[in-house]
Amino acid sequence: MDKINYSSKLFNNAIEEFSKLPGIGKRTAARLVINLLKQDKENIIHFGNTLITLARDIKYCKICHNISDTDTCNICENNTRDFSTICIVESIKDVIAIENTQQYKGVYHVLGGILSPIDGIGPSDLNIKSLEERVNTGIVKEIILALSSTMEGDTTNFYIHKKLKKFDLKISTIARGIAFGDELEYADEITLGRSIVNRQPFSGKDI
Amino acid sequence: MDKINYSSKLFNNAIEEFSKLPGIGKRTAARLVINLLKQDKENIIHFGNTLITLARDIKYCKICHNISDTDTCNICENNTRDFSTICIVESIKDVIAIENTQQYKGVYHVLGGILSPIDGIGPSDLNIKSLEERVNTGIVKEIILALSSTMEGDTTNFYIHKKLKKFDLKISTIARGIAFGDELEYADEITLGRSIVNRQPFSGKDI
Repeated sequence: MDKINYSSKLFNNAIEEFSKLPGIGKRTAARLVINLLKQDKENIIHFGNTLITLARDIKYCKICHNISDTDTCNICENNTRDFSTICIVESIKDVIAIENTQQYKGVYHVLGGILSPIDGIGPSDLNIKSLEERVNTGIVKEIILALSSTMEGDTTNFYIHKKLKKFDLKISTIARGIAFGDELEYADEITLGRSIVNRQPFSGKDI
Repeated sequence: MDKINYSSKLFNNAIEEFSKLPGIGKRTAARLVINLLKQDKENIIHFGNTLITLARDIKYCKICHNISDTDTCNICENNTRDFSTICIVESIKDVIAIENTQQYKGVYHVLGGILSPIDGIGPSDLNIKSLEERVNTGIVKEIILALSSTMEGDTTNFYIHKKLKKFDLKISTIARGIAFGDELEYADEITLGRSIVNRQPFSGKDI
């Protein structure tokens, strides 16, 4: 598809932009732009202006580094949240995923990545200093580590633990185990093994 | 995902725009916007401006109704094309698909849809009058009907055939049959049946 000479450069430019997005190839991008062209001119202009406004006006919360329209995000400004519990995540998409569960009432701290010597990402590239400052205020009682269970995630967990152990904090990680609805025979050995080691008392209330 | 309260309205607006596109749900849209936010501000603004320019400046070729940056598209303006052969297609995406094959050297005529009484699409909604005018110039010697092999496509083929039969034209349709690489046992009966009826002499050069 690389050498296609479309009859319109404007059309081709739009395809180029869409195909920069993850999981969207030239063919899908062409389908999206063709569909876009079926819409009213005003709708397409509105789409364009929405992206421009997003780029110009989006902010990152000065407390937790989540995306925000204002200096402080609406999670950090929400007085019904529990400010004594901070959930540490890698990126804003993890905030969205946890918010979707509607199970968490604490606040977040978005690291902006995880430690990865191979990719040249060290502690100074992540929002770790601001995390220490938050903990130093004395309001925080619990830290929940919710990073990927990869080697980089584990390394980051250890690093944060080392940095925060001088404070009087409960530090936990999210539970790993067999997903609800999954069958044991298809689980990988590490997950299954750990889920047996970390077995939990049966309350009879799970279902 | 409908009730998600993202921490940013700007972010939410961008997700709304992406999720209007076909095959993109709220979750995928969120992933796309998060990825977009990782790019430089200038890149996102460029994406937005590309869409606005597309909406404002895109034209439809006055000859074949293909998308174009100018009044006449670059296929209709290309003197190496064979103007005596017109391939009739439903939409610009069919032009792209046929151009991708690099097998066709004639020109196109984009109908902008197919006849569909159920959807209220009649002959006056399609670019049929301009097709007759093109044929009436006397330059055209062959018409290739490349519409979908649906009832609507067949109806449209018959209608166009009726409109053009007064002219001295060769009218053909694209070949239907078993796709290259497909196995017979998985082909539907109509396709397989017709591909036997319309069997072609074996030249020994096919492979």
